[in-house]
Amino acid sequence: MKNGLRLGIDLGGTLIKTALVDHTGRIMCIKKIKTSFKPRHLAERIHKTIRPWFKKSILGTGIGVAGDIDSQKGVVRFSPNLSWKNIPLKKYFQQTGFPEPLFFENDASCAAWGAYHIELKQSSKNLVVLTLGTGVGGGLILNGRLYTGRNGSAGELGHITIDPKGRPCGCGNRGCLETYMGGRYLVEAGQKELSRMNKKSCAFLTPKKLYTDAQKGQKYACQIWEQAGTALGIACADFINIFNPDTLLLCGGVAAASPVFLPFARKEINQRTFLSSRKSVQITVSSKNHHLGVIGAALLV
Amino acid sequence: MKNGLRLGIDLGGTLIKTALVDHTGRIMCIKKIKTSFKPRHLAERIHKTIRPWFKKSILGTGIGVAGDIDSQKGVVRFSPNLSWKNIPLKKYFQQTGFPEPLFFENDASCAAWGAYHIELKQSSKNLVVLTLGTGVGGGLILNGRLYTGRNGSAGELGHITIDPKGRPCGCGNRGCLETYMGGRYLVEAGQKELSRMNKKSCAFLTPKKLYTDAQKGQKYACQIWEQAGTALGIACADFINIFNPDTLLLCGGVAAASPVFLPFARKEINQRTFLSSRKSVQITVSSKNHHLGVIGAALLV
Repeated sequence: MKNGLRLGIDLGGTLIKTALVDHTGRIMCIKKIKTSFKPRHLAERIHKTIRPWFKKSILGTGIGVAGDIDSQKGVVRFSPNLSWKNIPLKKYFQQTGFPEPLFFENDASCAAWGAYHIELKQSSKNLVVLTLGTGVGGGLILNGRLYTGRNGSAGELGHITIDPKGRPCGCGNRGCLETYMGGRYLVEAGQKELSRMNKKSCAFLTPKKLYTDAQKGQKYACQIWEQAGTALGIACADFINIFNPDTLLLCGGVAAASPVFLPFARKEINQRTFLSSRKSVQITVSSKNHHLGVIGAALLV
Repeated sequence: MKNGLRLGIDLGGTLIKTALVDHTGRIMCIKKIKTSFKPRHLAERIHKTIRPWFKKSILGTGIGVAGDIDSQKGVVRFSPNLSWKNIPLKKYFQQTGFPEPLFFENDASCAAWGAYHIELKQSSKNLVVLTLGTGVGGGLILNGRLYTGRNGSAGELGHITIDPKGRPCGCGNRGCLETYMGGRYLVEAGQKELSRMNKKSCAFLTPKKLYTDAQKGQKYACQIWEQAGTALGIACADFINIFNPDTLLLCGGVAAASPVFLPFARKEINQRTFLSSRKSVQITVSSKNHHLGVIGAALLV
């Protein structure tokens, strides 16, 4: 990879992270901004915030977006988190004057690309990444290249069907992995479990609270994580049988709760995978969790 | 691809197909032999049968095997259909004097490689192939290359979990796609359905008979294909969301029954996939079904 600075932008539903990153993936400067939903306004606001950075020589800009992206055209086809549909993001970023060339990818693909470079040092040529956050995203590095499929929509690993008759998912399917492991659904299930046990519902239930409650041994929370971990294990077994990867990496905020869900996932994986693929895969939780997305976006350049 | 003849061998549980194939994938000569299970004996028998072919100049030999293959070493780690475990096939084929270099792959990967070249003329860079036979195999062409994963075990698409609590599968998992769509399981389910309906069991039930019975409107057979098609559709929806492929190709003997199962599969696919991936995938049944495996094996050279 050519020496020099790249600009990375990670557009999430709540926060925008933007960073200047060198060719090794090291962050030189980083800023966080609250997300605004008007795309042209958003481009101008980011530009204004990081204007001082533009004194430096920058090789280009990589942008990761939560949603279904047309990378070639730089169009966001659909982003439920940003409430966007067919937004010509590239045009707005060009008009605002961001350093060109511009690259666009799904945010989970960016996280996978970031993990491949800075966490695995390109040693793992076949890498499956699951981003566990409000939703569940997926990124694929296959034969050492980012795999995005025919038109950039590949890697929807969070929407693999676990139970064909399961809960409806935001994507239109039922019983997706996301309906078990997505932060939003974890909280919903937690509230339901509390009310089923005739306990007071918790107005401020979060995945983090579910995690600490499970660590304290609270039954309702333990049950939620057992269900989630089991579903994750069934999905991971599928990914291991399909991809025979070197590494299966979990990242995103909810991955922090892995001590309470990963044992259940491993049990399923052990029962449902082919021996040679099972023996050769490393299942790990990212240790560089926080900035993989923005670093990966920058390294698209 | 370099002009010249290649030798292809497709080692199945019942039959061995061997063919001389030119660089376009055209078959110049073909022979079928009954499978014997002693690997050294088998290599000698194939060699003896096709000895006249060796007068021609042959660029090398490609061998497809039903099972889990170490392509690098030419070792069959495990083949349930051939009852083989850790068989150093490359050694036997070298000692017998087959034209070198020798290449080894899983048979479904060979079928995918064959389909990519002769059926899709390399136009479909991201191709998911399902081989519907006694079992259900899978082959993946991603970014125009055969994808086999870390150690050659990738593409076990037949063992994606449809129902986590479903029927036990030969692979050790439960509720795999194969337990719905594999010929062996289709027949088992057919027998069970007949007995449930208090009908005489059929000693010679085959997937072909199940197909003709369904075409005649026999209820037990229609139900079996509905279940199978539904399971296939759930699995295909997963593959479409994961791979965003150009083409999803069904081949193998059981694919001939697609008129009775594919409508059920399409219904599930329509309900369970992301729009941009659904719109861009072609779902087709191979028209060159019979020899994809042996042609793909030859074209490994």
